[in-house]
Amino acid sequence: MVSKSQIKFITSLQQKKYRDKEGLFIAEGPKVISELREAGLKLNSFFSSELSEDTSNVFFSITDAELQRISGLKTANKSLAIFEIPKKSTITSEGLILALDAIRDPGNLGTIIRLCDWFGVTELICSLDTADCYNPKVIQATMGSIARVNVHYLNLAEYLFNAPVPIYGGVLNGQNVYDSKMPKKGIIVMGNEANGISEEIIEALTNKITIPQFGTEQKTESLNVATATAILLSEFRRTTEM
Amino acid sequence: MVSKSQIKFITSLQQKKYRDKEGLFIAEGPKVISELREAGLKLNSFFSSELSEDTSNVFFSITDAELQRISGLKTANKSLAIFEIPKKSTITSEGLILALDAIRDPGNLGTIIRLCDWFGVTELICSLDTADCYNPKVIQATMGSIARVNVHYLNLAEYLFNAPVPIYGGVLNGQNVYDSKMPKKGIIVMGNEANGISEEIIEALTNKITIPQFGTEQKTESLNVATATAILLSEFRRTTEM
Repeated sequence: MVSKSQIKFITSLQQKKYRDKEGLFIAEGPKVISELREAGLKLNSFFSSELSEDTSNVFFSITDAELQRISGLKTANKSLAIFEIPKKSTITSEGLILALDAIRDPGNLGTIIRLCDWFGVTELICSLDTADCYNPKVIQATMGSIARVNVHYLNLAEYLFNAPVPIYGGVLNGQNVYDSKMPKKGIIVMGNEANGISEEIIEALTNKITIPQFGTEQKTESLNVATATAILLSEFRRTTEM
Repeated sequence: MVSKSQIKFITSLQQKKYRDKEGLFIAEGPKVISELREAGLKLNSFFSSELSEDTSNVFFSITDAELQRISGLKTANKSLAIFEIPKKSTITSEGLILALDAIRDPGNLGTIIRLCDWFGVTELICSLDTADCYNPKVIQATMGSIARVNVHYLNLAEYLFNAPVPIYGGVLNGQNVYDSKMPKKGIIVMGNEANGISEEIIEALTNKITIPQFGTEQKTESLNVATATAILLSEFRRTTEM
């Protein structure tokens, strides 16, 4: 049984200001929830419409109808959990770091966090106007990998201008990435969905790289930022760790 | 001014059975619409809340409120167009072909069509249970590249068993893609979001390839199918066309 005040509290966590205030975020569905629990994230409360042997005091057995009332999904998926937002860690500057300049779409951010996890990139630096990584849509798209990637929000220009490593940026008219030599230690910057990397941040780049287009037709379109990130991370790992 | 019967007709095109019956599909927003028009797709009707010099008999000036009533988007984006579904073309078997086995998510399919466009893959073969490429969510995700990629729906197993070229499949335990020699002419198969390539189709593969994981932690997760497709297409183009 969920009370009216619980419903109000849980749905308020769909908004960043309440997540920040409470230090809590929502995850939905058995798979994502179990990945986050296994990764050691601290559970605040756990609502499920499935039979469970969980007898802890954070577990609440609820009906499907109640679950739908607290869910942010169109169709609720068996369970919803509230986790504590982990304490901020310090940035380790070893190895490969990914930086995002104003990525606005939560699905793109979630997919990029999942890519970081796959390619062993533990530090993800985000400009202050990038989407919030605890947005429920981001959490769903990460498939649990948010627990294995440290996401930092900061003044990106300031951070980059003080970084002592090479800074690569994905742009439209740079050097062909297949011909580029990539370092083991460095930062890759990816820009906003519509506008690319901002002018200020472009100034901080040491290397501009581009994924070449193929085929004969003239195209006006660019790659989606998440698929471009996939290709660049693959290229860095292929050329430096093989 | 849009009539009630027009609203009913337009919103019916959100469903595949009415798109098939009428031979029409919906595209929304100035960018996608203009890309499709430039690519030569035949316009059936065009509704816009913006001032326009278009005086053709397919153009209808409507209010924002009316546009929202015919839109499938949460927030309508200035214009909505209905295009004719192009006549089916025959499959050319030259060069690189991408085949999809039961891709269900319209966003993934749209992103993959956009990738085909970028990497010059003009033929996309889909199993009969793959999402419909004229689903409005697919159209929005393709950003207009649907006009430059020929999408074919057919019995995928039958097609692959009769194909006279090497067939590569993206799997979890195959050969490291970075160590694989790729041909100029061949087919890449990508599988369903949850289950990968089906058992029947696995039998048709001549080469199984895998994108290696990096980092020290044990991960249970796989890559999203669109990002995996991005990396494999990049690898084929990098190794065979440079």
